[in-house]
Amino acid sequence: MPKSVAIVSGGMDSTVLAHLIADVGYDLHMLSFNYGQRHVKELAYAKATARSLDAVHHEVDLTNVSKLLQGSSLTSDDIAVPDGHYAAETMRITVVPNRNAMMLNIAAAYATSIGAIQVATGVHGGDHYIYPDCRPEFIKAVDASITLGTLGFSKPNFSIYAPFITQTKGDIVRMGHNLGVDFTQTWSCYKGTDIHCGSCGTCFERREAFIEAGITDPTEYAATPDYVDPRKT
Amino acid sequence: MPKSVAIVSGGMDSTVLAHLIADVGYDLHMLSFNYGQRHVKELAYAKATARSLDAVHHEVDLTNVSKLLQGSSLTSDDIAVPDGHYAAETMRITVVPNRNAMMLNIAAAYATSIGAIQVATGVHGGDHYIYPDCRPEFIKAVDASITLGTLGFSKPNFSIYAPFITQTKGDIVRMGHNLGVDFTQTWSCYKGTDIHCGSCGTCFERREAFIEAGITDPTEYAATPDYVDPRKT
Repeated sequence: MPKSVAIVSGGMDSTVLAHLIADVGYDLHMLSFNYGQRHVKELAYAKATARSLDAVHHEVDLTNVSKLLQGSSLTSDDIAVPDGHYAAETMRITVVPNRNAMMLNIAAAYATSIGAIQVATGVHGGDHYIYPDCRPEFIKAVDASITLGTLGFSKPNFSIYAPFITQTKGDIVRMGHNLGVDFTQTWSCYKGTDIHCGSCGTCFERREAFIEAGITDPTEYAATPDYVDPRKT
Repeated sequence: MPKSVAIVSGGMDSTVLAHLIADVGYDLHMLSFNYGQRHVKELAYAKATARSLDAVHHEVDLTNVSKLLQGSSLTSDDIAVPDGHYAAETMRITVVPNRNAMMLNIAAAYATSIGAIQVATGVHGGDHYIYPDCRPEFIKAVDASITLGTLGFSKPNFSIYAPFITQTKGDIVRMGHNLGVDFTQTWSCYKGTDIHCGSCGTCFERREAFIEAGITDPTEYAATPDYVDPRKT
């Protein structure tokens, strides 16, 4: 079977992605990245998914790289993760610059070395608002860069596979549900405490996704604040 | 002064690049990558150059990444580095897939985090023959990818600076000579033994560069084999 390399964080989106690829029968290789994220516990969920899908799984340690990168609350202990819904001004602080580009290019090197036909990423429509490296035009550009950067070495027709790029998180939950994904085996919360905090931007998005999908949310949350969506005010 | 991030291996090309950037007065930040290369001793030369130019210097450890990448003699102890001049068939084995793309994207993340206006790379015309990620069309594509991937976070007009992209190694030696670069403080040999082996592809290219530039080669070589340039037969 063709080999597929999927970048899987252990969150909902990439876990559904892994199931989707395994479901079509590809030989799945999962890469998870440790970039010093506060919510490093998500990686344990990725490992469990790999085990359940009988996939090859490598954890790539980029903590050395992230130490170089200043100013992001996802990697700095002394910057607090903002509560509430994602909004450009408050969530800019959660941006690790060029993060997807680094992960996609490392994954492409690995894919080239094992002769895989694709690198799959779970970026989705809801990410576009804040993160420039989650937008369709970026995915197109990085695909072109990788095609040229591995020319003659990667598989012919090698490409970046981003099936959720125009979908919502609700769409992804529905797809995962149809694929039989156990969402209790995924982790979203940026705070990385014992259970999902329920208050941070990713917890808020996670809850909305289940509501949008019309599927019962099996997640245990520490708190359920009454937020106002800043996009709707 | 504007900040510039240069990828400096400790070889001739990137060392001249560092001098060139320091010469125009930019605030120079040098990144050197340890990707498990056999010739890791080149990094000590990069460090010495940073000291002499009063530049910030970070060494980025990618050995964890390179362990994932199979099949390149630059990182595998059990694959021999081929002797003789570079030729597509023999030197393919020295390709670390997508290496420049990984380094450029990590450097771009760092550049974004410190507000630098550019990432500089010493890729040159002579690299095009074998390495797809040293070609002008790749540099243009990775520049587009990084621009889109850091949009709104990197400096306006941020770009990849590749001043040698259409120059020969002889041109670079001449430029370095004019800038006062001490070429004994640079390392080329892929074998990474005590002194330059004189027999591998990079040693061959190093010698040719000085001949082409018409400048005395100060390098001590272990051997001087009588090669035939396969490009001229």
